[in-house]
Amino acid sequence: MREVVIIGVGMHRFGRFLDESLQDLGRVAVWNAIHDADIEPKAIQAAYVGNAVAGLITGQEGIRGQIVLAGAGLSGIPIVNVEGACASGAIALREAWIAVGSGMCDIALALGVEKMFCGDTSKLLKALASSSDVDAEASMGLQFTALYAMNLRKFMQKYDWTQEDFAKVAVKNKYNGSLNPYAQYQKPMTAEEVLNSRLIAYPLTLHMCSSASDGAAAAILCSKEMARRNSRKPLVEIASCVLQTSPFIDPKKRSAVNKEDGRFCIEEGLPFRDLYAQAGVAREAYEKAGIGPKDIEVAEVHDAMAPAEMMRSIALGFFKAEDAPAWVREGRNALTGELPINPSGGLTARGHPVGATGLAQISEVVWQLRGEAGPRQVRSKGKNLPKIGLVQNSGGHAPSGTAAMTVTILKR
Amino acid sequence: MREVVIIGVGMHRFGRFLDESLQDLGRVAVWNAIHDADIEPKAIQAAYVGNAVAGLITGQEGIRGQIVLAGAGLSGIPIVNVEGACASGAIALREAWIAVGSGMCDIALALGVEKMFCGDTSKLLKALASSSDVDAEASMGLQFTALYAMNLRKFMQKYDWTQEDFAKVAVKNKYNGSLNPYAQYQKPMTAEEVLNSRLIAYPLTLHMCSSASDGAAAAILCSKEMARRNSRKPLVEIASCVLQTSPFIDPKKRSAVNKEDGRFCIEEGLPFRDLYAQAGVAREAYEKAGIGPKDIEVAEVHDAMAPAEMMRSIALGFFKAEDAPAWVREGRNALTGELPINPSGGLTARGHPVGATGLAQISEVVWQLRGEAGPRQVRSKGKNLPKIGLVQNSGGHAPSGTAAMTVTILKR
Repeated sequence: MREVVIIGVGMHRFGRFLDESLQDLGRVAVWNAIHDADIEPKAIQAAYVGNAVAGLITGQEGIRGQIVLAGAGLSGIPIVNVEGACASGAIALREAWIAVGSGMCDIALALGVEKMFCGDTSKLLKALASSSDVDAEASMGLQFTALYAMNLRKFMQKYDWTQEDFAKVAVKNKYNGSLNPYAQYQKPMTAEEVLNSRLIAYPLTLHMCSSASDGAAAAILCSKEMARRNSRKPLVEIASCVLQTSPFIDPKKRSAVNKEDGRFCIEEGLPFRDLYAQAGVAREAYEKAGIGPKDIEVAEVHDAMAPAEMMRSIALGFFKAEDAPAWVREGRNALTGELPINPSGGLTARGHPVGATGLAQISEVVWQLRGEAGPRQVRSKGKNLPKIGLVQNSGGHAPSGTAAMTVTILKR
Repeated sequence: MREVVIIGVGMHRFGRFLDESLQDLGRVAVWNAIHDADIEPKAIQAAYVGNAVAGLITGQEGIRGQIVLAGAGLSGIPIVNVEGACASGAIALREAWIAVGSGMCDIALALGVEKMFCGDTSKLLKALASSSDVDAEASMGLQFTALYAMNLRKFMQKYDWTQEDFAKVAVKNKYNGSLNPYAQYQKPMTAEEVLNSRLIAYPLTLHMCSSASDGAAAAILCSKEMARRNSRKPLVEIASCVLQTSPFIDPKKRSAVNKEDGRFCIEEGLPFRDLYAQAGVAREAYEKAGIGPKDIEVAEVHDAMAPAEMMRSIALGFFKAEDAPAWVREGRNALTGELPINPSGGLTARGHPVGATGLAQISEVVWQLRGEAGPRQVRSKGKNLPKIGLVQNSGGHAPSGTAAMTVTILKR
């Protein structure tokens, strides 16, 4: 694999756009990325398109990418549609990365696009539930909010995490989102407002949950060698990108404890079995990038429910389960904290058009590493632009656990 | 890209299996491929799963591959779901090939699986129509049989192709299918029976059309270096694998005429614009493999309608449009002919579970190159086992033309 960089990113704002089609959303993100990369559209040699639920929402079950990209004026290239539920965007990035890395092409587009608002909530809920085992799980009424709530209850019992802590994560992300012009929700919120919002599944209240959303996000990847000759923007390299499905086998056998690094610390006995697998993915990504969790200066973490950010930060080795509440209370993951998490507002505030989220996370970290994040720009140790960022995106519930777990490490 | 070989293939018979789920079908194909490759299932390091319509047929819109592979006992690996309508299987192969070729993994599984029979024909037709532009095309009632019929009419007018010629292609493929234990239809048929069957859209009669089908097919790919050390079967190398979406731009600008090779001959003025693009894909595949059409000794060609085999053979450079009827009448594409096409029976007889077809074609050519095709084994010049085979698989109708065109060249 040769080295691959991201030379352009672009988004369509996330939100409720009843008058815009899947094509409309995709076109804006693709062209924003093309302009950002400062290339001719015909320079794009391949495209990977991530989408999760269009078949059930818009009826466009087949050739989604070909239809969306035709709307953006792109054809005559290999177009591959990929799907991995809420991780579809990250998977599109990964496959584009492998295509460029392998030498199959020099410049590839990764697009994540999703249309969720269709005026029919029951249709949408059914579509979302189809990211679990439809026969064994969804048909029994078990859905994702419930899964998250049950897992969080275990952390509350074992590590004294509180509903107030969870509200604080939401408050942080809502504040960050208020500074992000691409976010669905751009209004700060108090902990009281979060806690007093409608209870969805204890401990989760409405404003802790990500929402349905329409949106799109894109990235343009290029071989580092070619980009070095042509690109005028700082190059953001994909240092590693790992995808994994939770294993059936005892995940403890692939212990995620890193003895050499105290901060990378999924300890034995954590209540949530699946986190071991997620930690394994993180460890592999760190190893391949030749860094550790303490080197990360900015991160986008899949907070489909705000407190999931705490759980997943543990799997990423950012802090230990027993220290998580202190990190939250002390604002150590805020924009100005020692490790800003979800400066974009995360799924909680930016919204969660499922197939687009992974590439929105990528876009945010690229902007942060380039110093283009405006009022929400983070600084390493309060001073320099960050050089290393991490994106964690995951999706779906397979019989063995999480269907698609990804960790991508970006380096400037 | 390092060299990649196919070390195992496997199928679930195509047909009508109302009692079998998507998982049941996939499991059989995967395990047949695992046994054929003579590897431990845990040796598989990544999987690419092609499926086209499960979201609309079974309701499993998301994480199809994770659900199907869990049913086969596989998890704990990267699983990527890919879609490209009737070419989904070939795309799964291509992405697995790139993953192994890039060095991301040494052994990868490509699976194509489709469940089409669901006791609701209107649901199935709607699902199939969603492989075109749902808003602009499918909603107007234009579907694939009609598209094929219109294109064939042009050939009848311009090149004197006759409905009797088309029936002969169906007769050849039905005969081949009668020798294939994996085929949905294993009964030979006379030209009279084909011509007298129900008219679907002139010139197409029922027995010229591929049918709905349940089924699965899989291939296991390995780096050539590793396979050389471990495999006991003849290695079948992927010499090239090209994927393309029809371009908007005048396809004549990428002329498919090969001046050096009289047989590679999409001439100017062919009635069917899209064939130029398909010829471009073939030419790229030949160039990358370092061979020409006259080197092909066995081919599987996407005969979703039997006479489409004639159109596509032109794009593949096998013969000229005006010579096509003679080739058909003289049996030059029969099992014992100079270039056997669709020895498996093709889509016409084997059936067409859309996402599985591409890998069934691959399976057939692998068996032919290895000399394992039993009573339908083809011989090069009537004597030796073939060494070079070609698979053409395509799918979907995008605004610019065919959504996904693939040509794969395999070499023993």
